[in-house]
Amino acid sequence: MAPLPYLLLILVLFRPAASPGAASVPPPSHPPPPPLLPQKLQVWPKPTSISWQSPVYAPLSPSFSIRAVPSHPSLRHAIAFYTSLIRAERHVPLVPPANYTLARAPIRLLALSVSDPEVPLGPGVDESYTLSVLPDSGSADISPRAGAGGGAATGGQPIVPSGIEISDRPHFTHRGILLDTARNYYPVRDILHTLRAMAFNKLNVFHWHITDAQSFPIVLPTVPNLANLGSYSPTMRYTDNDVRRVVSFAASFGIRVIPEIDMPGHTGSWAGAYPEIVTCANKFWAPRAKPALAAEPGTGQLNPLNPKTYRIAQDVLRDLVALFPDPYLHGGADEVNTACWEDDPVVRRFLGEGGTHDHLLELFINATRPFLVQELNRTVVYWEDVLLGPKVTVGPTILPKETTILQTWNNGPENTKRVVAAGYRAIVSSASYYYLDCGHGGGGGNDSRYDKQEKEREGTPLFNDPGGTGGSWCAPFKTWQRVYDYDILHGLTDVEAQLVLGGEVALWSEQSDETVLDGRLGPRAAAAAETLWSGNKGSNGKKRYANATERLNDWRHRMVERGIRAEPIQPLWCPLHPGMCNLSQ
Amino acid sequence: MAPLPYLLLILVLFRPAASPGAASVPPPSHPPPPPLLPQKLQVWPKPTSISWQSPVYAPLSPSFSIRAVPSHPSLRHAIAFYTSLIRAERHVPLVPPANYTLARAPIRLLALSVSDPEVPLGPGVDESYTLSVLPDSGSADISPRAGAGGGAATGGQPIVPSGIEISDRPHFTHRGILLDTARNYYPVRDILHTLRAMAFNKLNVFHWHITDAQSFPIVLPTVPNLANLGSYSPTMRYTDNDVRRVVSFAASFGIRVIPEIDMPGHTGSWAGAYPEIVTCANKFWAPRAKPALAAEPGTGQLNPLNPKTYRIAQDVLRDLVALFPDPYLHGGADEVNTACWEDDPVVRRFLGEGGTHDHLLELFINATRPFLVQELNRTVVYWEDVLLGPKVTVGPTILPKETTILQTWNNGPENTKRVVAAGYRAIVSSASYYYLDCGHGGGGGNDSRYDKQEKEREGTPLFNDPGGTGGSWCAPFKTWQRVYDYDILHGLTDVEAQLVLGGEVALWSEQSDETVLDGRLGPRAAAAAETLWSGNKGSNGKKRYANATERLNDWRHRMVERGIRAEPIQPLWCPLHPGMCNLSQ
Repeated sequence: MAPLPYLLLILVLFRPAASPGAASVPPPSHPPPPPLLPQKLQVWPKPTSISWQSPVYAPLSPSFSIRAVPSHPSLRHAIAFYTSLIRAERHVPLVPPANYTLARAPIRLLALSVSDPEVPLGPGVDESYTLSVLPDSGSADISPRAGAGGGAATGGQPIVPSGIEISDRPHFTHRGILLDTARNYYPVRDILHTLRAMAFNKLNVFHWHITDAQSFPIVLPTVPNLANLGSYSPTMRYTDNDVRRVVSFAASFGIRVIPEIDMPGHTGSWAGAYPEIVTCANKFWAPRAKPALAAEPGTGQLNPLNPKTYRIAQDVLRDLVALFPDPYLHGGADEVNTACWEDDPVVRRFLGEGGTHDHLLELFINATRPFLVQELNRTVVYWEDVLLGPKVTVGPTILPKETTILQTWNNGPENTKRVVAAGYRAIVSSASYYYLDCGHGGGGGNDSRYDKQEKEREGTPLFNDPGGTGGSWCAPFKTWQRVYDYDILHGLTDVEAQLVLGGEVALWSEQSDETVLDGRLGPRAAAAAETLWSGNKGSNGKKRYANATERLNDWRHRMVERGIRAEPIQPLWCPLHPGMCNLSQ
Repeated sequence: MAPLPYLLLILVLFRPAASPGAASVPPPSHPPPPPLLPQKLQVWPKPTSISWQSPVYAPLSPSFSIRAVPSHPSLRHAIAFYTSLIRAERHVPLVPPANYTLARAPIRLLALSVSDPEVPLGPGVDESYTLSVLPDSGSADISPRAGAGGGAATGGQPIVPSGIEISDRPHFTHRGILLDTARNYYPVRDILHTLRAMAFNKLNVFHWHITDAQSFPIVLPTVPNLANLGSYSPTMRYTDNDVRRVVSFAASFGIRVIPEIDMPGHTGSWAGAYPEIVTCANKFWAPRAKPALAAEPGTGQLNPLNPKTYRIAQDVLRDLVALFPDPYLHGGADEVNTACWEDDPVVRRFLGEGGTHDHLLELFINATRPFLVQELNRTVVYWEDVLLGPKVTVGPTILPKETTILQTWNNGPENTKRVVAAGYRAIVSSASYYYLDCGHGGGGGNDSRYDKQEKEREGTPLFNDPGGTGGSWCAPFKTWQRVYDYDILHGLTDVEAQLVLGGEVALWSEQSDETVLDGRLGPRAAAAAETLWSGNKGSNGKKRYANATERLNDWRHRMVERGIRAEPIQPLWCPLHPGMCNLSQ
């Protein structure tokens, strides 16, 4: 049949909590599964509750508009954006609906009602909404349409499902993407493109891992030499204007931007401007017969025993807070390397006199965290390492639970449990499930480990064989299925589950930049987006397998139509032949 | 220092053999390693022999041109293309040359001498060439330049290395990419884009795997319903004009196009037009408690016992030969599935009366291969399965060595050896090294195998665990290092090595289409391109590790500048700090 333009009207509408500053809405520990989607309505992420009496569509009026009552400047950009998208989009689902009724009266207006548009964007925002697309009264003249006839009748105009009611709210308030713009640089344009894609998927946190050992691209007003001497080139920087643009574009979609300038580890790039405060800078990362100075090439850590370290670090944090309004700020603090600190004679003397690396980290945290919390009014997110190790840790007494959040990345559900059992809120980014960079080889160049001419022996584990795994420490590639199926609350008690804010998929950029960005993020970030928004189980309480595959195929198709070059998950034959590509019938 | 535009003048110049139709030039079994590249001249693929007396550059004249003597229409497109590219390109290497001399006299002309431009493109073409960039006589006025001063002196004009002499020829005459345009479709524009990228890398064979079980996109004049009813949609087809465009664009770059319409397996898509000649069409691929009907979803095989099969197959082959002038044609014949044939009652009776599947395949081959060879004047390439199995094979007596070539894909060097030991020429595509699609998950959608919340146990092989490997049968991802390091002659005697024509990296498209094409192919196809052109060993006879990494970083950078969105292999920090990202110092 001739393809009928088909438009699904789903918008993200904010209805912030009436009381600004309220604590974040606790996530339900065992959220009820949403109902079955009627009539192959391909929606992603699936709403918590959706009902559609019968398969009726209505034409979209060419003068369709969205009106907010009350109006508010913060809604203006989103309204303009979505009005434009809805009018222009001509999406034909991969498997168009077979039988439906076409109402006569066109849909002209979406009335948007926001209970409190004044609430600032932050962790407490209530993202619940209801959406109704109701037929106009008097449109009793409806006629059955089946197939080709409908195309002629609508004259090729877009049609939208009519009589649909949605009541929706996320399971988790923190649903994010981490983007590393330090190992490789991404132009601002590509960051904005990613934010737009996130908005379509109801992802609401952009965790910007701005700097690392390899480069320092952000130009900070008080300490501009960090970028002048630490960025890859003058054209690979983010000015304050760039940052403002990213933050405001994100905010217009209800996306929070949480900046991270990792420290005290991962700071080799600071040594261009301030060599005196960085230990083991510019050294070969893996010296012969000695412990490695860093987890990967690019050495250097801030020296906790040099007072200047704290002057610079505080300048950095102050500048950061001025540019990024979110209540959270990520303080990094992952992968502290003991050999790197020991490279410094003052540190060695300290250790020789009975000091420990834990003391050093404690010094550093105590000189930066209270400053961030009390003077700069931020809640601090750290990587799990600071509490859980494996190597250098501080005690919980210097990490107040009220103002410290921990982000997990190792050992799957085990570390999530350790964090919440200790009473801290958690953001889950388990590498084994949510690291999107894994499986594309090792960034260490070519060496003899890859030079294998024989087939691996049957039964031999591949994962110690970089020739097989390609040297990616977290190989293999995390498939969309694995991302989707991950239950970030696995193994937690109901009380512990209350402390899980949500999750972030992470794109570390050793082997990623703008050339492959869309395909690396999409559609796997979309997979996480649904699971974090409304879960991965059907109305029967079971994990969605075929249903998720089917809807994700269509959603990927739609994202590509919108210019988001997400990779395909199956041959096109599969969505065109529903059920035929399942593992079993 | 200010970046100086820097242009490396390397062209592929054809000097075909004086005697057309000569047997393909036998590859040297132990080719001598090429010399060290002087002065960080970043070239890819590395020429067999290159000498540069001293680091001298000369400015490129704005009126630079290429002249062929004698002139010939077949050279016109390439000359126009490269003249334009050379004049416009403003490549600055990641690590610009430090000290060099800048000659005064500009380079105005490249004189191209082709010994026999009449020789048609095909397996016998001699691709050797010499290239000299010599300083003008009288340009004795040269002045040393070191760094920033040079920029002002050249006024930002491109400069090229001068005094350089290259003598180059490929080790293997068959250096290809296989692209599967059936599991997912690729617009013609993206195929042309890929051919252009291949030309830069001296890849000279485009193996077009046009059709498969899932779709039949090529519109064949005699049997157009195969595409009308077998393509994914009217916009996902290749007309005869499209094909001619691809073939001629490829030919202008010296790239051969070898078409494959896979048969008798992988033909489910023929059942739209000719259901009567396809067994087990449109069935669920993995019925419960029965053997699978196909290796993956999309069932259907040509019925060797129906005479109509051969009428249609011959129409297909005749049409194909009319569109594709190359002397080789790929007949497919991989993965014949016995359960699929047995689904047909006539086949079951045949088998019941003492027939075998081998007989059936023999019937099919005997009714198509001699037709292709004798009437249509083609050499036939088959997948290794026809001779090596594992399941259904024919004997060597029905595959004459003079007109049959076998393409390997299983068991690495082992199957290459079996093919050449049996006396057949081989094209190597070992999945474990050269399949570029591996490692991105299973195309079977989501199922319980991916639903694993616990960490894999230490020491457990991941590769039987689709939750870990993601269900990709040939996981893990084949890294550029693994592709580069592969010795396709491994384990062969000198005599056997003579039969290896070369290799092809393969992009199967279950999870690939134009959105991710460049990143899937690049830079891994470039890695294979160098190894197949001039080898993977340095002048000391050892595998290139750091040297290959360094040059590939720069080459990837250059390809991206040329609009080929190859993925990065390392953080940009690595090429900017040569040697610092190696495994050991």
